[in-house]
Amino acid sequence: MSTKAAAQVSETRLWQRLMQIARHGATPRGGVNRQALSAEEIAAWRDMIDWASALGLMTFTDSAGNLFLRLEGTDPGAAPVLTGSHLDSQPTGGKFDGVYGVLASLEAVQAIVETELKLKRSIEVVSWMNEEGSRFAPGMMGSAAFSGAASMSQFLPVRDAAGISVSNALQDLQQAFPALPRLSLQRPVSAYVETHIEQGPILEREGFPVGVVTGIQGKLTYRVIIEGFEAHCGTTPRSERKDALLAAARAIQALDLAMTDAEDQVRFTVGRLEVRPNAPSVIAGSAVFSIDMRHPDSAELMALGARIAEICELAAAPCSVRIESLTRAESLQFPQPLRDLIRTKAAELNIPAMDIYSAAGHDARFLHQVCPSAMIFVPCRDGISHNEAESAEPGDLAAGARVLSEVLVELAAR
Amino acid sequence: MSTKAAAQVSETRLWQRLMQIARHGATPRGGVNRQALSAEEIAAWRDMIDWASALGLMTFTDSAGNLFLRLEGTDPGAAPVLTGSHLDSQPTGGKFDGVYGVLASLEAVQAIVETELKLKRSIEVVSWMNEEGSRFAPGMMGSAAFSGAASMSQFLPVRDAAGISVSNALQDLQQAFPALPRLSLQRPVSAYVETHIEQGPILEREGFPVGVVTGIQGKLTYRVIIEGFEAHCGTTPRSERKDALLAAARAIQALDLAMTDAEDQVRFTVGRLEVRPNAPSVIAGSAVFSIDMRHPDSAELMALGARIAEICELAAAPCSVRIESLTRAESLQFPQPLRDLIRTKAAELNIPAMDIYSAAGHDARFLHQVCPSAMIFVPCRDGISHNEAESAEPGDLAAGARVLSEVLVELAAR
Repeated sequence: MSTKAAAQVSETRLWQRLMQIARHGATPRGGVNRQALSAEEIAAWRDMIDWASALGLMTFTDSAGNLFLRLEGTDPGAAPVLTGSHLDSQPTGGKFDGVYGVLASLEAVQAIVETELKLKRSIEVVSWMNEEGSRFAPGMMGSAAFSGAASMSQFLPVRDAAGISVSNALQDLQQAFPALPRLSLQRPVSAYVETHIEQGPILEREGFPVGVVTGIQGKLTYRVIIEGFEAHCGTTPRSERKDALLAAARAIQALDLAMTDAEDQVRFTVGRLEVRPNAPSVIAGSAVFSIDMRHPDSAELMALGARIAEICELAAAPCSVRIESLTRAESLQFPQPLRDLIRTKAAELNIPAMDIYSAAGHDARFLHQVCPSAMIFVPCRDGISHNEAESAEPGDLAAGARVLSEVLVELAAR
Repeated sequence: MSTKAAAQVSETRLWQRLMQIARHGATPRGGVNRQALSAEEIAAWRDMIDWASALGLMTFTDSAGNLFLRLEGTDPGAAPVLTGSHLDSQPTGGKFDGVYGVLASLEAVQAIVETELKLKRSIEVVSWMNEEGSRFAPGMMGSAAFSGAASMSQFLPVRDAAGISVSNALQDLQQAFPALPRLSLQRPVSAYVETHIEQGPILEREGFPVGVVTGIQGKLTYRVIIEGFEAHCGTTPRSERKDALLAAARAIQALDLAMTDAEDQVRFTVGRLEVRPNAPSVIAGSAVFSIDMRHPDSAELMALGARIAEICELAAAPCSVRIESLTRAESLQFPQPLRDLIRTKAAELNIPAMDIYSAAGHDARFLHQVCPSAMIFVPCRDGISHNEAESAEPGDLAAGARVLSEVLVELAAR
């Protein structure tokens, strides 16, 4: 059993590249704000393309703003193996969420190049567009469009808080890289493997450097729009008010109470609230908030989701309520053969690995719909993620890349 | 009894000027967004200065960004009579709030000029800086600084949502009018009269074109800062969360319940809420909201204000709470002699007038601390204000200016 590729993985190089990419959008508190299709993400693309070109990889994009770095196989007509994650971050995100998966993939491919292994299938390192969904909602636009789960035509008009559309932001990206070829969406893919920090405390607590992800929990997201009536806060009696902010506060609390389960399995979050006009002495005319709900049991999740409208309407009266459904994703299980392959390769490398369920969503959700897909997790400190304090150990990050390199060798040889 | 000045007041000119100023910051829905010290307010200043200069008035400012248009009296050393209001608006404000008081004052002064009356005291039309407090909190900065109730040094570092400070914004204003003399704050004033739309339904309902304002209800404002902990919404169990947005929702609802009185006299409003990072899939790390509380009875108001901290702390746990007190204004009564003068002049003009209490705060609150002050209200349609639908009748607006002109003649002659 050869583990030559894994032996070429460089913990130091991987760490240095993580720190280099973390400069693009670095925040004063040690985190990262690198929004999808922003100048900061474009700067990260430049580094990725420079590193890939130095390795002799082909570089290209597509109409969804995904980035591909391709190591050509001996059979260029064979469907490639894809591996990657995303380079965008939350507004107050960390140095590892997403970018680790992209750089671990590049590190694995570089290790394969350095071993001079000749593999049948091409391997493409990919960075998916807008996984986080914080600048443009919903997230995972790039992988959804690539897999055919959604059409770019529905994403192009989506605007960020400054009024810039996905369409305009994609043009900025394309103008930054005019020479980059643009391949079609929905190309055949033979397999997809995504590496990611766990974003939870389990691997660290249990002492495993690698997690073999069994599946991803289901997720529902909504936008709730509450309409009230703007009025002067000093002159308008309570009996005549339609206060959209107060109605939103009541709805959020009522939803939270309704979603509280004794087992603590429901993940219910209102993370965003926009109030208009948002002025201290004006009764709010409108309030718009996000709902993100997850549960390992799809049936339970859908049943909870079905209650949202009534809860909001009762709590928000006399304001009116409109609810838009954004994401409706069932729980999924990754295919057993690919999970077994990851477990076997970790064992060959003497890297302890355990099964782990993903509470967070990932681009692998959409690739799972078009090809055998899998994920490898590595620990992050205290389970903290989506936070500027996000941190991980260089040794764990390298362990994930080593397992990935051997998995890719096997998948590309088939 | 002469009413020559009132006869010169032009309903048409006053209305046309209101519509002209409404162009600066006009919104698609017929309202106005003219923030303090913005380009839109600077444009409104240009119109005011042009009209004043054509009338032969002196124009000047001060270090607080207030605008003065002065009709010189026969005794230039005598303390002037001030009359005016403000040109800034709420983000989705109307065409009359504030600007009516400034233009009614200019119209009254123009009527006095046209009668060629010679008056002892100078009359100054004033537009106070940042009455609304929507761009920079708290409001009424200009009148507070002018009256000595506050020092500009405490306002200069205040920043708007874009990070621009009052200090920087004042420099923009000064650079736009480099030739405008800057007089000192806390100049002696002999009297102040402010004209304003009622911002409530009473005058319209009772059928009076003019209200003699008896006083202003007390007001407390606060900023409540809730600190939680940013975390991933898919992976973090409820038991480990410190969700600042959920804590804010609970606190707002708990405050609202505590402030509900059977008589419907308490005016309690949370009009602004800012969430960080405000991303759909991140548990909020912080939430900051405004509180605006008013009550005609100062003792009752202060007692309610004293309960806020405990209510917030209980509701927001396990998040931490910090509360900043911004405004602490007792209820006030305007002096009876000045109210009697307004009532007498209205009667001489056969304009029906009734006593009315101001539920809204005004710059007259601060002038009241340094000179005899009074206010004249006119009706607004359906009592709607702080709303793009705000509206008023040209005839009512002119009636207010006519009463004002005769009051100013009397005050300036003394």
